[in-house]
Amino acid sequence: MKIPELSDIQAAYSRIKSFIHHTPILTSHQLNELYDCELFFKCENFQKVGAFKFRGATNAVLSMSDEEKLKGVVTHSSGNHAAALALAARMNGIKANIVMPETAPLVKKNAVAGYGAHITFCKPTLQAREDATKLIMEKTGATLIHPYDNFNVICGQGTAALELLNEKNDLDIVIAPVGGGGLLSGTSACVKGINKAIQVIGAEPLNANDAFISFSTGQLTPSVNPLTCADGLLTSLSELTFSIIKKNVDRILTVREETIIECMLLVWERMKIIIEPSSATVLATVKENPDLFRGKKIGLIISGGNVDFRKLPF
Amino acid sequence: MKIPELSDIQAAYSRIKSFIHHTPILTSHQLNELYDCELFFKCENFQKVGAFKFRGATNAVLSMSDEEKLKGVVTHSSGNHAAALALAARMNGIKANIVMPETAPLVKKNAVAGYGAHITFCKPTLQAREDATKLIMEKTGATLIHPYDNFNVICGQGTAALELLNEKNDLDIVIAPVGGGGLLSGTSACVKGINKAIQVIGAEPLNANDAFISFSTGQLTPSVNPLTCADGLLTSLSELTFSIIKKNVDRILTVREETIIECMLLVWERMKIIIEPSSATVLATVKENPDLFRGKKIGLIISGGNVDFRKLPF
Repeated sequence: MKIPELSDIQAAYSRIKSFIHHTPILTSHQLNELYDCELFFKCENFQKVGAFKFRGATNAVLSMSDEEKLKGVVTHSSGNHAAALALAARMNGIKANIVMPETAPLVKKNAVAGYGAHITFCKPTLQAREDATKLIMEKTGATLIHPYDNFNVICGQGTAALELLNEKNDLDIVIAPVGGGGLLSGTSACVKGINKAIQVIGAEPLNANDAFISFSTGQLTPSVNPLTCADGLLTSLSELTFSIIKKNVDRILTVREETIIECMLLVWERMKIIIEPSSATVLATVKENPDLFRGKKIGLIISGGNVDFRKLPF
Repeated sequence: MKIPELSDIQAAYSRIKSFIHHTPILTSHQLNELYDCELFFKCENFQKVGAFKFRGATNAVLSMSDEEKLKGVVTHSSGNHAAALALAARMNGIKANIVMPETAPLVKKNAVAGYGAHITFCKPTLQAREDATKLIMEKTGATLIHPYDNFNVICGQGTAALELLNEKNDLDIVIAPVGGGGLLSGTSACVKGINKAIQVIGAEPLNANDAFISFSTGQLTPSVNPLTCADGLLTSLSELTFSIIKKNVDRILTVREETIIECMLLVWERMKIIIEPSSATVLATVKENPDLFRGKKIGLIISGGNVDFRKLPF
């Protein structure tokens, strides 16, 4: 199993940088005062498709051979990765097949269709999704681009931290959310490759704490029926992301649902930017652990800003 | 009645520029495609206190004599102007007295109190507000800083358009919301002072269309019981703002409530920034009048981002 190094993430960055948005790093005096530390928000909510996922998807697509590109890509996802892969494929003239559960919200179906992807609907079970994906791969020869269990995807996700540290190199701590672990893997490999003294922390909902348990016990332990408003963090670590996280991450902290919602609203109200619940976990970590973060310079990876305003969790 | 000229707005800008945020001009490919024009959003939602009001309040405070400053300032408002004046006064070591109806939302009371202002509560009628304000003026000698019927406030509000045109000088049209008319007055005086060929349009809720009626008939006609989700636009023009608008504004367009809400959500979803309903009126104007705006370069003054997420209008 190949583990990404800083050079892999730098190579990914060279590959994707003309396709992605270089997102801003925002700060807030009010939030710095409130939590008595210096917060630097790396705003992937302003990334194309509204999430960091576009970095990984683009790197995966650009890393394919010409022969592979002719046959297209496939993934199963109903979230940000589906939209990201659809757009990355379209921008490179590649066919994208997305397997989605027939129960996926209409807004997500429309987003993926809007990027020109071919959608295959299936029953809302993991087995049905994997079967449908396999069938497409057999029929078309399309390359599977897994949302996080994929070396090139992970390297792409790590480029958000690369941009952050290129602009702000004196951070004490970097915090990223953890679901399947693609973002945290890429972030931690990048940060530790640049400076081992910078702490890397994963932020995870208490109600979907498979990464916390796996990290604490050393045994990969998937979630069973996770239930959190942070809908981007329902997935569990893979062998690959777990290996990278074990090597590079200092600790994983869990946060409560009410803190996630409170911190999401705080960012909306004070910073006037939309972040999704998954992104709010990083600020929730700061809020729930004041002693760990007081006086520190902290980079927060804000993973995305895709919120369904007709179904708010408060 | 003295009408502001470009030189007055430039002088205001020199006075306030070290106190205010220089706010960004954002763009959105998706919205440009959707409306077939080029939109430049001047984002006063990122201004201090979350609204352009801080510009006018700061200019008014800085324009006072030393003797006046010793006696403090007073205003009656429950909205963004109250918070703006409270902060502008605090930043300059001046005492602020704010008269608020006792029925004002707790969140607004807390915001104003948080900026260190002294609050006087009164019954929720205009008469009670004016009486309480007069009493404070008589007792303390404080200077009244009206939210919009004030030359220095208007000049301050015009500095948002000044920053916009300094960065983007080839606009065809500038649109600003109109309530009491302070922002539209300052914006139009600035824009026409720089380039008479740029059209200036006021955006007003159909349900609070006193400016539209006054502008159409040439007779100042206050609103009676306006009812709109754009809570910053409930006020009516004053003689002063009406004079400036008559001189400098090309037209006033009204927009429906459902378009305001739709456009507010569109900006939240596509641009990942929070704008308040009053600000959404400018985009609603573009949406409701495609033939007027097709192919044009349009500056939109986004007035603020203060939204009560527990009382959403959708």
